[in-house]
Amino acid sequence: MRPSGRRPDQLRAIALDTGVNKHAEGACLARFGDTHVLCTATVEERVPPWLRNTGKGWVTAEYGMLPRSTNTRTDREAARGKQSGRTQEIQRLIGRSLRAVTDLAALGEVQVRIDCDVLQADGGTRTAAITGGYVALAQALRRVQARGVIKTVPLIGQVAAISCGLYEGTPVLDLDYAEDSTAQADANFVMTNTGGIVEIQGTAETTPFEESEFLALMALARAGITELCAVQAATLAGLE
Amino acid sequence: MRPSGRRPDQLRAIALDTGVNKHAEGACLARFGDTHVLCTATVEERVPPWLRNTGKGWVTAEYGMLPRSTNTRTDREAARGKQSGRTQEIQRLIGRSLRAVTDLAALGEVQVRIDCDVLQADGGTRTAAITGGYVALAQALRRVQARGVIKTVPLIGQVAAISCGLYEGTPVLDLDYAEDSTAQADANFVMTNTGGIVEIQGTAETTPFEESEFLALMALARAGITELCAVQAATLAGLE
Amino acid sequence: MRPSGRRPDQLRAIALDTGVNKHAEGACLARFGDTHVLCTATVEERVPPWLRNTGKGWVTAEYGMLPRSTNTRTDREAARGKQSGRTQEIQRLIGRSLRAVTDLAALGEVQVRIDCDVLQADGGTRTAAITGGYVALAQALRRVQARGVIKTVPLIGQVAAISCGLYEGTPVLDLDYAEDSTAQADANFVMTNTGGIVEIQGTAETTPFEESEFLALMALARAGITELCAVQAATLAGLE
Amino acid sequence: MRPSGRRPDQLRAIALDTGVNKHAEGACLARFGDTHVLCTATVEERVPPWLRNTGKGWVTAEYGMLPRSTNTRTDREAARGKQSGRTQEIQRLIGRSLRAVTDLAALGEVQVRIDCDVLQADGGTRTAAITGGYVALAQALRRVQARGVIKTVPLIGQVAAISCGLYEGTPVLDLDYAEDSTAQADANFVMTNTGGIVEIQGTAETTPFEESEFLALMALARAGITELCAVQAATLAGLE
Amino acid sequence: MRPSGRRPDQLRAIALDTGVNKHAEGACLARFGDTHVLCTATVEERVPPWLRNTGKGWVTAEYGMLPRSTNTRTDREAARGKQSGRTQEIQRLIGRSLRAVTDLAALGEVQVRIDCDVLQADGGTRTAAITGGYVALAQALRRVQARGVIKTVPLIGQVAAISCGLYEGTPVLDLDYAEDSTAQADANFVMTNTGGIVEIQGTAETTPFEESEFLALMALARAGITELCAVQAATLAGLE
Amino acid sequence: MRPSGRRPDQLRAIALDTGVNKHAEGACLARFGDTHVLCTATVEERVPPWLRNTGKGWVTAEYGMLPRSTNTRTDREAARGKQSGRTQEIQRLIGRSLRAVTDLAALGEVQVRIDCDVLQADGGTRTAAITGGYVALAQALRRVQARGVIKTVPLIGQVAAISCGLYEGTPVLDLDYAEDSTAQADANFVMTNTGGIVEIQGTAETTPFEESEFLALMALARAGITELCAVQAATLAGLE
Repeated sequence: MRPSGRRPDQLRAIALDTGVNKHAEGACLARFGDTHVLCTATVEERVPPWLRNTGKGWVTAEYGMLPRSTNTRTDREAARGKQSGRTQEIQRLIGRSLRAVTDLAALGEVQVRIDCDVLQADGGTRTAAITGGYVALAQALRRVQARGVIKTVPLIGQVAAISCGLYEGTPVLDLDYAEDSTAQADANFVMTNTGGIVEIQGTAETTPFEESEFLALMALARAGITELCAVQAATLAGLE
Repeated sequence: MRPSGRRPDQLRAIALDTGVNKHAEGACLARFGDTHVLCTATVEERVPPWLRNTGKGWVTAEYGMLPRSTNTRTDREAARGKQSGRTQEIQRLIGRSLRAVTDLAALGEVQVRIDCDVLQADGGTRTAAITGGYVALAQALRRVQARGVIKTVPLIGQVAAISCGLYEGTPVLDLDYAEDSTAQADANFVMTNTGGIVEIQGTAETTPFEESEFLALMALARAGITELCAVQAATLAGLE
Repeated sequence: MRPSGRRPDQLRAIALDTGVNKHAEGACLARFGDTHVLCTATVEERVPPWLRNTGKGWVTAEYGMLPRSTNTRTDREAARGKQSGRTQEIQRLIGRSLRAVTDLAALGEVQVRIDCDVLQADGGTRTAAITGGYVALAQALRRVQARGVIKTVPLIGQVAAISCGLYEGTPVLDLDYAEDSTAQADANFVMTNTGGIVEIQGTAETTPFEESEFLALMALARAGITELCAVQAATLAGLE
Repeated sequence: MRPSGRRPDQLRAIALDTGVNKHAEGACLARFGDTHVLCTATVEERVPPWLRNTGKGWVTAEYGMLPRSTNTRTDREAARGKQSGRTQEIQRLIGRSLRAVTDLAALGEVQVRIDCDVLQADGGTRTAAITGGYVALAQALRRVQARGVIKTVPLIGQVAAISCGLYEGTPVLDLDYAEDSTAQADANFVMTNTGGIVEIQGTAETTPFEESEFLALMALARAGITELCAVQAATLAGLE
Repeated sequence: MRPSGRRPDQLRAIALDTGVNKHAEGACLARFGDTHVLCTATVEERVPPWLRNTGKGWVTAEYGMLPRSTNTRTDREAARGKQSGRTQEIQRLIGRSLRAVTDLAALGEVQVRIDCDVLQADGGTRTAAITGGYVALAQALRRVQARGVIKTVPLIGQVAAISCGLYEGTPVLDLDYAEDSTAQADANFVMTNTGGIVEIQGTAETTPFEESEFLALMALARAGITELCAVQAATLAGLE
Repeated sequence: MRPSGRRPDQLRAIALDTGVNKHAEGACLARFGDTHVLCTATVEERVPPWLRNTGKGWVTAEYGMLPRSTNTRTDREAARGKQSGRTQEIQRLIGRSLRAVTDLAALGEVQVRIDCDVLQADGGTRTAAITGGYVALAQALRRVQARGVIKTVPLIGQVAAISCGLYEGTPVLDLDYAEDSTAQADANFVMTNTGGIVEIQGTAETTPFEESEFLALMALARAGITELCAVQAATLAGLE
C-alpha cells in the first residue's frame, strides 16, 4: 500500500491552471497533489549571442524553490550567492525537454524563458515544472503569434514528464515525497504526446536494479504521460 | 483621478489568506490589489551566534521577487549570484518592523525567519510583505506556543505598513505601480495598531517636498494602517 | 546631559576641507566631530547604458568603511567578496540625495561618481558623506565647467544631511556613536538649503515613537541642516 | 561507417594506468581513445557534518577539465569563479555511481574524495571518469585497509560506465566527439560487473527516440561495460 | 634629470605620522611625497585556526586603494566582489615583511592585523605600506604590552622598504608614478635596520637587465632604507 | 647532504616533452624531478580590449594545481569559487616572464594564452611552468607562423626559471619540496639564454639574509638556467 493510498499506476490529482500571472506572456500553476510549481513564460525578441544572425530561436528555463516550499526550510539560493548543482541540473533538464518539441528555426530569433518556481514541494517538482512549463510555453507562443511577433506557433508536439520508482519492491507512478525519500530506485521520464522519448534519468538509490524493473517503470510512465498530455490539451483548448 | 479610479484615501482590495503552505509554521498570502506576496514563517530552536546564551530570540526576514512577478522579466538573483541593494534594504526593513512588536526576551532562544516572496508585483510589495509577514509570524508563534516550544506568544502589538505618495500633486494612499512610477514623492510608513511609528522612509522622487505635504501623507497612512490592522485581527481571529 | 556635553540642538564641530586629493575633480574631507569621511568626485564623459542617447547625465555614489574606522575592526568588504546590505543602503541614499539637487538634463551625458570612504567613524557617517559629497560634487562640476566639458554648473540647490534621535527621552541633534547605540529612536534627514525635504529615514530602535516626537526631531534637523549649508557655502566660496 | 572506422559495438582503445601520482592513496589515468582523465582518490579520516557520529562513511567526487583539454580553449572555472552546471551534474553522477558499489556502513567514518581531471577530451569524459574513478577508489581502499585505517575493503562490486548513441540512424557504442556532437540521441549507462543498473541518462538531441532504439543502446552498453569491468579487474589484479 | 628634480639617490619627502586614528591600537599615516598610505594595527587575542594551541602568534596584512587614490578612478574591489591579483600579492608581501622582524613565539597566541589603505597614490604604495605598517605594528605592540596583554614587545628589528629602478638608463631611488610607469626595470627591496635582506622583487619591464645594474639598485636601496629606519626610530621615540 | 643526495649545484632530472596534447597549438609537459607541469599554448586571433587597434599582441598565463598534485589534498579552486593569492601571483609571474622574450609588436593583434596545470608537485612548480611554458609558446608560434597567421616567430630570446635557496646554511640549486619547506631563504630567478635578468623574487623565510648569500644563489641560478635553456633548445630543435 502506498502512503497516499493510491494504486501503483495512479497519478496524484493533477491541475494545470493558467490565468495566474497578469504580466507573463504565458503562465501555468502546475499542481501534482501537494507539489505546486508556478511556471511563467517570457518572450524576448533577442537571442543569446551564439544564435545571433542564425535565424534560430531558443527556449531556456530557470528553476527555484521558495525557501519554505520544503518541509524544513532550505537556504535561499540568492542569499547563498549560488545555485546548487541540483538546481542547475533541473533547469537544464527543463530547457532541453521543452526545446525537444519546439521548432527553433520556425521560432526565428526569439527567446522564450521559462521560470519554474516551486511554491510547495512534495516530490516530483521537476516533472510538474516540465508539464506546466509546456502549457506556459504554448500559451506564450500563441499570444505572440496573435500579436504578429512570430508567424506560426512553432510547436511540433506536446511534452510532459513523470517520475516512477520502486517503492517497497513495487513499481509505482508519480512518487510523492514519502515514497521518493525511501524508494529503492527512481526514474524521471520525459515523453511527447506521441510516445517519443525525450529524456530518461534513472538512478538506483540503494541497490542496482534490473532491466525488467526499469521496463516496468517505463510502462507506468508512458501511461501517466498520456494522461498528463490530455490535461494539457484540455487546458490549452480552454484558452481558445 | 487615480489610474485605478480609487479615492485618494482608498486602499486597494486587501486579502490576507492563511492556509497557503502545508509545511511552514505560519503562512500568509498578502494581496494588495494585484500585488501578491507569499509570506511564510519558520521557527528554529537556535539563534544566530551573537545571541547564544543570552536568553533572547530573533526575528529576521528575507525577500525575493519571482523573475516574472514584474511587468518585464527581472533577472533571478540566485542566477546572478547576489541580492540587489534594493532586496537587502527591503528585507532589513521587514525584519526591523517585525522585531518592533516582538518581545525578544520573552521569545527565548528561538529564531523566526520570515520569507516574503513576491508572486506578482504592482507596487507596494514591501508594505504587503510586512503586513502579511506579521500574520505569518503571529500564526507561527501561536502554533509553537501550543506545542510548548515557547511559553507565551511574545507579541506586544500588531504591525502593518502602507505607502503614500504625491500623485499629480495630490496625496494618495497605497500607490499601485502606475502611481508609484510617476509620483513626485513617496513614503512608506510602518506603524502599530496603537498608532506608534516604527519606520518612516520618505523619498522625493522628482523635487523636494514640504513638511505639510509629508504630514498629509502620514495622516493618510495612519488611517490606512488602522484598516490593515483590522484585517489582520479578523484573519487571526479566524484561526482560533 | 549628552555624553559629549553638547546641548540637545548642538552639532559637533563641523569641518569641510577641500584640497585633500590631488587626482579627483572634486574632494572633501567631511569631519563631524570624530567622524571623518573622505569624499571624492570623479567625472566621466560617459553614462550608464540605460541613459545612452538620452542627453541626460547621472550622479551615483559608493560608500565604504576602512576596516579600523570602527572601534573594533570590521572585516574588509573587498576581502569578504561583497558589500553588506547596510553599505548598499547607504550608498543608494547618498546617490539619491545628490541627484535631488542636480539637473540631470542640464548635466548632459556625463556621470559623476562620488566615493565616500570613512576613515574614522563615530556615528553619522552617512550624513557626513552626503554633506561632504555635495561639496565634492560642486567642486567637480565647477572644474569641468571651467574646462568646457559642461556648459553650466547644473546644481539647483545645496543638499545636506543630519541625524537626530531620542536619547534618554530627549530629542537631540547629530548623534555620536555613544548616543546612536543607545537611542530609543533615530532618524536621518536630508534637506536642501531652502528647506525642501529630500529623504527621511526614521526608525524606532527600542519602542515605537509618537508623531509629536518625530516632529521634534524634524525641527532639530531643519536647524542643523541650515548650519551645515552655511558651512558648505563658505567652503565653496573659498574655492572661487 | 563511424568516423573512427570502428564497428558499431566496438569500444575505443581502453587503458587504465595506475602509478600516475606519487601522493594520492589511489590513482588511475583512464584513457578511452583520445579521452584522458586523471583520477585520484584521497582518503580522509573525517566525514561531512551530516554523517558525524553515524558510523557511516562517504564517497564524493569532483570533476574538472583543463582549459585546453578541448578543441577550442574552455575558460578555467577557477578563474570564472564558479563551476558550470555541466560540471556539477557530472561530479554528482560520478559520486552517486561510486557510492552505489561502496558499503558506506562498512567504510566507517571515512571519506574518499575522487578527483577526476580531464587532461584531453574526445567525448565520453564522464564515463572514463567513473570507470577510472572506480580503480582509484579500489586502490585507495586496499591501501588504507593495509595500513589498518579500515578493516575491510568495503566494495560490493565493480562499477563502470559507457555512452551509446544513435549515429546516422545506427546504435553505436562509446561515442567519440565527432559522433557525440552529431548524434540524434545519446545515453550514458552506469552498471555493475553483475549487470545491475546504477544510472541511466538518455537524451534526445534532435528528435525523440523510440523505446526499441533505447533498448538497442542498453544492449550495446551492457556488452561494453562487461569489457570495461574486465580491464578494471586485470588492472587491480596487477596491483596485488 | 628626474621628473621631480630629485637626485638619483634622493628619497621623496618622508613623513610617518601617528595619532591619526582614535580606535586602532597602532596607526601611522605614511607619506612618501604624494603617496599617502594609512596604516592601522589591530591586536586580537586569538589566532588563525592553524596556530591554535601552538603558543605562537601571527602578523598579517590587508591592502586596498581608495577608488580615486589613482589618477583615473579604479573600480572599488568591494563592489567588484574580489580583490585583484595585484592587491593580494602586495598584502602577502606586507605580511611576510612584518613577520620577518616579529618573534612570533614571544608574541604568544595573539594576532596583529595591519590594514594599509592608500588614500592617494603616486608610486611606491607597497613600500610606504611596509614602512608605515612597521610603525603601526610597533606602536600597537607597545600599547598592548603596557596593558599586560603581552609580556614583551616581540620585535627583533626594524623593517622598511623602498623601490628603485632604471629610469632613462640611470639607477634611481624611490620611484614616483611618472618614473615607475616608464622605468626599464624596477625592484622593491625590504630590509632590516641592520641591512638584512627580507624580500627582493625585481622585474624587467621592457628589456632584461644586467647583474651590475641590479647591484646598483640594491646599493641605492640600502642607503634609502637606512634613512627610512631613522625616521621610523625618531617617530617611535616620540611616542615614549 | 641534500635529502635527494644531489650536489648543491645539481638540477633534478629535467624533461620537456612536447606531443602531449592533440588540441593545443603548443604543449609541453615539464618535469623537474617529481614536479610535473602540463603547459599548453592557445593562440587566439583577438586581443584584450585595451590592445584593440594598437597592432600589438599579448601573452598571458593561467596556473592551477590539481587537487591531489600535493601531498595532502588542496581544495579545488573552481569549487571554492576563487583563485588564491598564491595562484594569481604565480600566473602573473609566468605571463610577465614570457612577455619579456616576445616582441609584442611583431606578434600583431594575436593573444597567446599559456595554461600551466600542475599534475604532481614537489617544489618549484612556477619555475617548471615558466620553463615549459616557453617551449609551448615557441611551438605554438612556429605552428601559426607556418599557417600564415603571423609573419615571423616573434621571439627575441629564450626564457627559463629556477629556484635556489639556503638549505641548512648552504646555497643549493632547484629546491625540491623537502628542501623548500625548511629553507632559510629561497629565491626564484627568471633569466634569458643570454643571461639577462627578467625577474628576481627572493624571500627570507626564517631570518634575513646577507647580500653575499644572495649573490651565491644568483650564481647557482645562472648556471642552472643555462642548462635549462640547452634542454629547451634541444627540444625545439627536435620539432623541426
